[in-house]
Amino acid sequence: MSTNGRVPCDLLIAAGWVVPVEPHGVVLRDHAVAVRDGRIVALGEREALLARYEADACVLRPEAILLPGLVNAHTHNPMTLMRGVADDLPLHEWLTGHIWPIEGAVMGPAFVADGVELAVAEMLRGGTTCCNESYFYPDVQAATYARLGFRAVVGLPYIDFPTAWARSAQEYFDKALEVHDNYRGHPLVRTAFAPHAPYTVSDEAFERIRMLADQLDLQVHCHVHETAREVEEGRRQHGVRPLARLDRLGLLSDRLIAVHMTQLNDAEIELCARRGVHVVHCPESNLKLASGFCPVERLRRAGVHLALGTDGCASNNDLDMIGEMRTAALLAKGVAADAAALDAPHALRMATLGGARALGLEAEIGSIEVGKQADLFLLAQDGIEAVPCFEAISQVVYAGARSQVTDVWVAGRRRLADGALVDIDTAALRARAREWQQRIAALPRGGAA
Amino acid sequence: MSTNGRVPCDLLIAAGWVVPVEPHGVVLRDHAVAVRDGRIVALGEREALLARYEADACVLRPEAILLPGLVNAHTHNPMTLMRGVADDLPLHEWLTGHIWPIEGAVMGPAFVADGVELAVAEMLRGGTTCCNESYFYPDVQAATYARLGFRAVVGLPYIDFPTAWARSAQEYFDKALEVHDNYRGHPLVRTAFAPHAPYTVSDEAFERIRMLADQLDLQVHCHVHETAREVEEGRRQHGVRPLARLDRLGLLSDRLIAVHMTQLNDAEIELCARRGVHVVHCPESNLKLASGFCPVERLRRAGVHLALGTDGCASNNDLDMIGEMRTAALLAKGVAADAAALDAPHALRMATLGGARALGLEAEIGSIEVGKQADLFLLAQDGIEAVPCFEAISQVVYAGARSQVTDVWVAGRRRLADGALVDIDTAALRARAREWQQRIAALPRGGAA
Repeated sequence: MSTNGRVPCDLLIAAGWVVPVEPHGVVLRDHAVAVRDGRIVALGEREALLARYEADACVLRPEAILLPGLVNAHTHNPMTLMRGVADDLPLHEWLTGHIWPIEGAVMGPAFVADGVELAVAEMLRGGTTCCNESYFYPDVQAATYARLGFRAVVGLPYIDFPTAWARSAQEYFDKALEVHDNYRGHPLVRTAFAPHAPYTVSDEAFERIRMLADQLDLQVHCHVHETAREVEEGRRQHGVRPLARLDRLGLLSDRLIAVHMTQLNDAEIELCARRGVHVVHCPESNLKLASGFCPVERLRRAGVHLALGTDGCASNNDLDMIGEMRTAALLAKGVAADAAALDAPHALRMATLGGARALGLEAEIGSIEVGKQADLFLLAQDGIEAVPCFEAISQVVYAGARSQVTDVWVAGRRRLADGALVDIDTAALRARAREWQQRIAALPRGGAA
Repeated sequence: MSTNGRVPCDLLIAAGWVVPVEPHGVVLRDHAVAVRDGRIVALGEREALLARYEADACVLRPEAILLPGLVNAHTHNPMTLMRGVADDLPLHEWLTGHIWPIEGAVMGPAFVADGVELAVAEMLRGGTTCCNESYFYPDVQAATYARLGFRAVVGLPYIDFPTAWARSAQEYFDKALEVHDNYRGHPLVRTAFAPHAPYTVSDEAFERIRMLADQLDLQVHCHVHETAREVEEGRRQHGVRPLARLDRLGLLSDRLIAVHMTQLNDAEIELCARRGVHVVHCPESNLKLASGFCPVERLRRAGVHLALGTDGCASNNDLDMIGEMRTAALLAKGVAADAAALDAPHALRMATLGGARALGLEAEIGSIEVGKQADLFLLAQDGIEAVPCFEAISQVVYAGARSQVTDVWVAGRRRLADGALVDIDTAALRARAREWQQRIAALPRGGAA
């Protein structure tokens, strides 16, 4: 394969701008990335890399920005089939009158497989290459992600009541360990424990999860301090706020992926920083469900690890991480009353390396660095919405849109090519989504439990 | 032209969903609109209209939503050439160290013409058909909107200090009246007075504007209560808060288009409702500049007229009214701590009929009703991001994107056809924007005044 002394590689991508995320805030003009065996083997000036490498495939985009794939650090992807199913409702009515009854009627392997495939299609079209999943049927999820060549950390669900997935605590744990075992060493799919939330998980189960997570070296993905009501009820029931209870149970560590965290006092922020807890900010879901405002800028200044997630499609209503970055960056300024809060480079970092770190994958993904997996995407800048461009990272965060995403690679495999999904039959997928829509629309709903 | 007894018309548009906005919250399945001489002459079931009308042009879109054109009720469109020029900075440094020095160096007829053309291109591609403009060189703006066939209310600027546009109070008024006179009776371009803000306009000038606005039947477009600092300084200087001062000067009426309004107590909200004041909410600009939170839901419940705007591109950084609706609907829930606040139909109403009403154009635009101007757009629903669809208006607001906009008409003239701009040379426009970018990037900046 070597020609004229050039080094062979599988893929070479050159772009007008390359934003590696690490080093922080850097923008490289007219650079390129060489990929071999799914990994980045070189990052350098375009002309130098074109001269040095003989690539099987070459993608040259002078009018595009190359970025590391986005990491959606909190999703319930099967719920993509419930996009917009019950909007503009008070939280309790939304959950008990709509979401739970629908899930009770439709949840099963077919629903989970179709929902995950629809989500993968949407995520890829938006530059997302990895997600952190929390839902039932992790076996079906894992098989779907693996089949579609999408990187995922699949949550092993635990909740203190029976569901279609498991009838008892023992069955939750048995099935969790089985799924974990089936995907040990898988190149794309990993697992994490996913206890639902402090108000739905007993001390006993949390302790068992902590012990198993340590033994198996797994992260623990949990909704924490999502609403004021949850915190107050937790305090009444357990004598302390949920974060303090989790700390007492040994769960506050860099294994914990704490999602939402809208209710935090200064001492709790300090504690999370000290323990190395990862906080996943879901600004659009928090707004839509009126859960409260996560104090992102205070967390950042305290040194807490930050990641970004969309949450499920029933409370967002999309899986658009570029839009989510923008909402995060804008909202942080309003909440902090400081126009300099959460600047564009930090918002992008949350959506890439911050997510990778939360998932324990920072050695593999989250930035464009030699040796890392080639999880990458191109954002076209050839439209009239992309001019002028004074600062590329600002442009991505404040004026970027997922419709500008043209090409996506996961571990060096092209999953989106010139805007078209590879290996996904979109017409068939849309037809299946419409079938679920009809089935869900026909269900009786509306009564509060 | 009449064939088989069919009635001739210029244009017939049929869509899978038609959202007329008036009646409120209604979604019509498989309906069509017939247009003649720029106006809507019929709205009815698709098959009935196809049978009744013989149209010169027919656009059939079963997988799209037809909506009234969006009304951007507060913009500074020439600033589109300053998109992202100075992000993530504290407000004072942003304004005095960047925005004002740049404007001082570049502002003139060429800058205004190019900025407005870039803005029109971006607005059309996002379904916006009308804007309410506030900037210098209204003569150049007006000529550009008229040339491009875009509907606009052009602000006649007034500020208490000399600018490139006018050197004295008298010159501001003389030029304002001249521009107003030149566009009297124009089918697309109207004028309004645009005093900058209470802190930059004297009592004398406000009184003159009020008198002239009454005589000429013009709206008054003004930034009001944008920040806490402005309100406090106004109170110190005039003894009362700016809104009270404006009321004393006779300006609080349904002529007033009050933009931002982030600082409002209950009495002020009641007063605005009583006086018929129009409030333009600019949520993304308010967040980005950390100006405060406009209490949209409280205003809505009090019966205050609401409209929506993007503000200029230097504080947004786009002119995307679909995104702005979404931000408005989400943020209102967070601010009101109520997931039922500002539901999707109300957010859409702000962005259409609410804007039309603020501009005094509610008899002409803002909804799909027989007799109104055919300002319309189609939002494609054929992507995987658009399934499932349980509720069309929710889908537009919470899962819609301007990239789905395929076709736009202003007064029945097609301005966007299958995603391509009519009458705008986008390559040339991009090149001119890049030239301004280079010129602006080379300017000395950064010192706070």
